[in-house]
Amino acid sequence: MRVAIIGVGLTKFGEQWETSFSNLFVEAGAKAIEDAGIDGGDIDAIFVGNMSGGRFIDQEHTSALIADHAGLNSVPSTRIEAACASGGLALRQGAMSIISGFHDIVVAGGVEKMTDILTERTTQTLATAADQEWEAFLGMTFPGLYAMIARRHMYEFGTTREQLALVSVKNHSNAKHNKYAQFQFEISVEDVLRSPMVADPLRLLDCSPITDGAACVILASEKKAKEFTDSPVYITGSGQASSTISLHDRERITVIDATVNAGKMAYKMAGKSPNDIDVAEVHDAFTIGEILAIEGLGFVDAGKGGKATEDGITKIGGKIPVNTSGGLKAKGHPVGATGVAQAVEVVLQLRGEAGKRQVDADAGLTHNVGGSGGTAVVHIFEKG
Amino acid sequence: MRVAIIGVGLTKFGEQWETSFSNLFVEAGAKAIEDAGIDGGDIDAIFVGNMSGGRFIDQEHTSALIADHAGLNSVPSTRIEAACASGGLALRQGAMSIISGFHDIVVAGGVEKMTDILTERTTQTLATAADQEWEAFLGMTFPGLYAMIARRHMYEFGTTREQLALVSVKNHSNAKHNKYAQFQFEISVEDVLRSPMVADPLRLLDCSPITDGAACVILASEKKAKEFTDSPVYITGSGQASSTISLHDRERITVIDATVNAGKMAYKMAGKSPNDIDVAEVHDAFTIGEILAIEGLGFVDAGKGGKATEDGITKIGGKIPVNTSGGLKAKGHPVGATGVAQAVEVVLQLRGEAGKRQVDADAGLTHNVGGSGGTAVVHIFEKG
Repeated sequence: MRVAIIGVGLTKFGEQWETSFSNLFVEAGAKAIEDAGIDGGDIDAIFVGNMSGGRFIDQEHTSALIADHAGLNSVPSTRIEAACASGGLALRQGAMSIISGFHDIVVAGGVEKMTDILTERTTQTLATAADQEWEAFLGMTFPGLYAMIARRHMYEFGTTREQLALVSVKNHSNAKHNKYAQFQFEISVEDVLRSPMVADPLRLLDCSPITDGAACVILASEKKAKEFTDSPVYITGSGQASSTISLHDRERITVIDATVNAGKMAYKMAGKSPNDIDVAEVHDAFTIGEILAIEGLGFVDAGKGGKATEDGITKIGGKIPVNTSGGLKAKGHPVGATGVAQAVEVVLQLRGEAGKRQVDADAGLTHNVGGSGGTAVVHIFEKG
Repeated sequence: MRVAIIGVGLTKFGEQWETSFSNLFVEAGAKAIEDAGIDGGDIDAIFVGNMSGGRFIDQEHTSALIADHAGLNSVPSTRIEAACASGGLALRQGAMSIISGFHDIVVAGGVEKMTDILTERTTQTLATAADQEWEAFLGMTFPGLYAMIARRHMYEFGTTREQLALVSVKNHSNAKHNKYAQFQFEISVEDVLRSPMVADPLRLLDCSPITDGAACVILASEKKAKEFTDSPVYITGSGQASSTISLHDRERITVIDATVNAGKMAYKMAGKSPNDIDVAEVHDAFTIGEILAIEGLGFVDAGKGGKATEDGITKIGGKIPVNTSGGLKAKGHPVGATGVAQAVEVVLQLRGEAGKRQVDADAGLTHNVGGSGGTAVVHIFEKG
């Protein structure tokens, strides 16, 4: 059995001072419901990807808050958390719930409200995705972790500082045409190299921003989907894997094993290989992250991600366009929402509704990472 | 298709100063694996019920932490959160994952380490299960919410202060024979009535304690289960419902609608009625909670829970023994673990392994509530 996506919805990503956590989710959900042509009464369950309501807005139990504020009681509502991979896992749990026969139509969404607390507390909260006892407590933050990976990748494979910058340049260029993106403007390699140092070699413009936002998709059983649309997009592969939560426990840090393993599971389930994928949204929380992703997912050989980026393979019009939405870097990264927002972009591409970002695609992929790779989740999508 | 439980494991519940969050889960998981007669390599996935790692131990992404510290990478590991109902939902997601065919054997567990922070911060963290903007921010805590329910129940139905106390007396009496319980001693009605006032009419001995602990079960497909045991217990019903997260938004506060609706779903799936249930573990975070539960689940008529308790119907040897484990009140309430610990007790009862707490049972039920009833989840279990 296949699971269909029959509706998608996004809020604007950015600093959303005028709205609340639950309003963000409800806005994205209402758009997805409208897009699907269903109404709230058709919803059997809600799955909420949310990293840290408890620390960002002093609110746990966010699944109940959302069901209530959406006016959808007594629908079952469940929060899924795996740091920045929370959204991807909400999508996976939503799909499982349909394949199991428990539900026919569900909302799988993600949300984060990150700007209601001081920036220093935001950084501390994001660091709770790392091992608290062995990494965060000692002062390690995510830019630092990814900086070590970048430095090692440069050392082992000759990846250059400019190649890292080109990931950011490409993703900003894509975001220019995405009205939901936090940063709808282009930047140059020089801009990246002149931006403030965060953790050597990563500079400010190598890092995804702090973002408020939400994303939702409506999932339906194949049978139900046909009642509402002639052209659903199907989820045909889903893979999830764990790896050590601490970077220092890995045999190698230039490969995220969880990405490789989740990718293999998803490809196997879909009966696809990397060559079959026409468009991908991958986890570029830092520029080095996109390079690790395209290598780990098999789009390019190990160590060749920097060169491939320089060669334009991942641009719109290239062999495998990556992060046509602008990615986490330029679209923004509301951590719990990101995995679902990636799915929204791939659905728009497969439907031919991506406007100036449109590529020619029959099959797409999303790749969502928690922490420095303790969790990864990969989904494959195909036209109906 | 039915989902089997082929192994169970618990840690001691209480103040666990000498161990860590992840060690607690790993201990319970290892016991469950040993009980099932499988080994770690047989595990396809982990589902972790955990309310607030982010605030209790400054650690989100607890699913990855646990997979890592359990030595089970690259197994998919997923955290589920719905406040005090987190464990029950982890069980439900684990069951869905098997019925969907994604997995054959999974660990569904729950864990909380609540004593590593100051008690006042614990109370604040528990209050994040309520609506932050409309309840917690204004100073409302859970004893206060349940006190209002208790007061209203007394007013509407004539429930007495002594009847509330008898819930606690019964559950302490049961916990005396449970070596995993936090409080293995009996108390009297007078003890309850003399204990310090927390929120009128609820006193200290009406309230469940702050607890560290973990619980795990091994779930398997029916086919896989037969490879490992001749006498599995089956999950035959699962129901989940949401209600308003805020108490003030409800038309009535003496019924938890989510309990009623989740119960109906579970009874329907199992083809059972309340009369078919021989033993139940229900959510007695406060004494009034057990009275609401036995009414909402249909074991007694609405408003009659206090009288039924006084009449001994819910005692071991009564018509429907409730909380033979000692319940949240006396066994302890590590919030993310509670829903799974309830399942452990019912499995032990159905297997005839409950020692001096043993009752005669073919079918059992668990009932787990998040917050003041924003989430409820009910499971029904039967002998194989």
